[in-house]
Amino acid sequence: MRTRAAVALEPGKPLEIMDVNLEGPKAGEVLVEIKATGICHTDEFTRSGADPEGIFPSILGHEGAGVVLEVGEGVKSVKPGDHVIPLYTPECRECEYCLNPKTNLCQAIRATQGQGLMPDGTTRFSMLDGTPIRHYMGCSTFANHTVLPEIAVAKVRQDAPFDKICYIGCGVTTGIGAVINTAKVEIGSRCVVFGLGGIGLNVIQGLRLAGADQIVGVDINPAKRAMAEHFGMTDFVNPNEVEGDLVAHLVELTGGGADYSFDATGNVQVMRTALECAHKGWGESIIIGVAPAGAEISTRPFQLVTGRVWRGTAFGGARGRTDVPKIVDWYMQGKIEIDPMITHTLSLEEINKGFELMHEGKSIRAVVVY
Amino acid sequence: MRTRAAVALEPGKPLEIMDVNLEGPKAGEVLVEIKATGICHTDEFTRSGADPEGIFPSILGHEGAGVVLEVGEGVKSVKPGDHVIPLYTPECRECEYCLNPKTNLCQAIRATQGQGLMPDGTTRFSMLDGTPIRHYMGCSTFANHTVLPEIAVAKVRQDAPFDKICYIGCGVTTGIGAVINTAKVEIGSRCVVFGLGGIGLNVIQGLRLAGADQIVGVDINPAKRAMAEHFGMTDFVNPNEVEGDLVAHLVELTGGGADYSFDATGNVQVMRTALECAHKGWGESIIIGVAPAGAEISTRPFQLVTGRVWRGTAFGGARGRTDVPKIVDWYMQGKIEIDPMITHTLSLEEINKGFELMHEGKSIRAVVVY
Repeated sequence: MRTRAAVALEPGKPLEIMDVNLEGPKAGEVLVEIKATGICHTDEFTRSGADPEGIFPSILGHEGAGVVLEVGEGVKSVKPGDHVIPLYTPECRECEYCLNPKTNLCQAIRATQGQGLMPDGTTRFSMLDGTPIRHYMGCSTFANHTVLPEIAVAKVRQDAPFDKICYIGCGVTTGIGAVINTAKVEIGSRCVVFGLGGIGLNVIQGLRLAGADQIVGVDINPAKRAMAEHFGMTDFVNPNEVEGDLVAHLVELTGGGADYSFDATGNVQVMRTALECAHKGWGESIIIGVAPAGAEISTRPFQLVTGRVWRGTAFGGARGRTDVPKIVDWYMQGKIEIDPMITHTLSLEEINKGFELMHEGKSIRAVVVY
Repeated sequence: MRTRAAVALEPGKPLEIMDVNLEGPKAGEVLVEIKATGICHTDEFTRSGADPEGIFPSILGHEGAGVVLEVGEGVKSVKPGDHVIPLYTPECRECEYCLNPKTNLCQAIRATQGQGLMPDGTTRFSMLDGTPIRHYMGCSTFANHTVLPEIAVAKVRQDAPFDKICYIGCGVTTGIGAVINTAKVEIGSRCVVFGLGGIGLNVIQGLRLAGADQIVGVDINPAKRAMAEHFGMTDFVNPNEVEGDLVAHLVELTGGGADYSFDATGNVQVMRTALECAHKGWGESIIIGVAPAGAEISTRPFQLVTGRVWRGTAFGGARGRTDVPKIVDWYMQGKIEIDPMITHTLSLEEINKGFELMHEGKSIRAVVVY
């Protein structure tokens, strides 16, 4: 079949909207009509050429929602008509990782996914001249139709709006999951969140959901304050307005240090501050942000020897097929909010505008609706 | 009263054996006759002048065992005749830290202890000319008699030999506790231990006690191998004999990486290797060693984002008054061994020889018996 897609032809160039060929699903695969997709910083990381592992041409996008149109041989967990969210972290429920309760990093299709290929080592997308186009993060939601492994789709309820729940495919789950699955924040905790972009806001609403007593937000942009307060932030700190040491200020503000701190900036200096403002004896710091290639985190080992713990999280520690449907339920029940974070809705033809809005800091999340 | 002590008069000088004055115990304090004391690298760190927080003159030593001779007003948990192990990490059971199950870092007397003073801000030791001598780590076991806060002594059984259980006051508890309290190693784990000195050997026997399936020891000194195997090491790796990348070698040897790795070297480069050889998705690395002043640990945040956890431990995460008596029991029951690690026994007059043996790498632990 043919479908419409935004194709990343070369690093650093705007995406090109065009018709592409899409082969139908092979065994264990499903064809999904994407109804909506968010535009995430990770897409931009690859589009811009900053990602050393970026492969071109490819169809980016990994934060989608849609409807199953067709299933390949042997597919049992979904059927045509099911509403699904594509998963860049799949859940095979059979590999060593899926069977270890400490991790969500299913490795079943890791090698081929990293190369922009389906598990059989080929692509389903190609240019009209036959040139293969790579998949991206196993999702490629910047195409109106895409093919996904069965283990990489989460079946969700049918009454949830695609243009909102697509955000659960990455940002919402990453932020809320970092709180619930990775940090396992307890009721009454005092927490600090660095970076009040989309991920940071979702960490904040995760903390509110988990019953945190204090939710300190840290951002150099004071314009972020109102929205963060809407999602549950109790204290705002602008590092540019703090006299003296930021760590000391945060330790004092939290009455001894954060029980849990979260970096949602990707800046390795901020990651250090996040660790060091954690409470002596038990404070844990969770790295969510993706750092530039080659950047390193540092601290004195004394920080750890005196009881702080340094962790990271990917996809919020969520097992997608199991956890994503629950988060969709929470949204529909009003336990979490998504609507205020979807600040812009675009057509596929306008997708490059979405990247511009991101650069200008004007959007929390821009969503393409097909 | 007067007692005999090895006094650190100035940084970098040998200890001087002399008579000193010792005031009796004030309220909440106990007078203990020290029967035996280990000589630890931490004592040497301060004696040598490397410790930026070292204070002189002082009586070092923090790994002792002895008998209570007299108790001050209000002391209820011990009485004259009780056998005790001094605790450089006290356990008041009342402070915010003692009441938080995540930490053992009791802060009740932290400020004064760090200054070499008793909780009332004075010293009990003085030179015969009246010059005050500071306490050290709240213990000062290089004196035949010492005064300790009640919350800094663990009461232990009376049939345990002082010249062995003194080692439980630091090294044994630090190594075994890192496994049991900090890492909480599960049966069947695969583990890597860096540094096969006294702490490393105790980590190894802790891992054996915890039921680890694989215990890899890493040391550049092949002479350490036999003793480590005696304590439970299953595989020995000499980094100087590994061709190519040490991390890759250890990941292969452990079938994907260590479930738990331990640094018992204090070298920040080794700490990085220890983290990076931990298993993707769930491996935890525990820093035990004390790094030189100002040294920093580094890694790419990707190591944490893909599921590794970086922790540290102090006094093996043990709550001394509660846990140390249990470890003494384990020794007496034969669950753990100490005797082969006590390689040298000295008199107080020979204490400087103990430091020389440490420098020459000839001792695992030298113990002074009064």
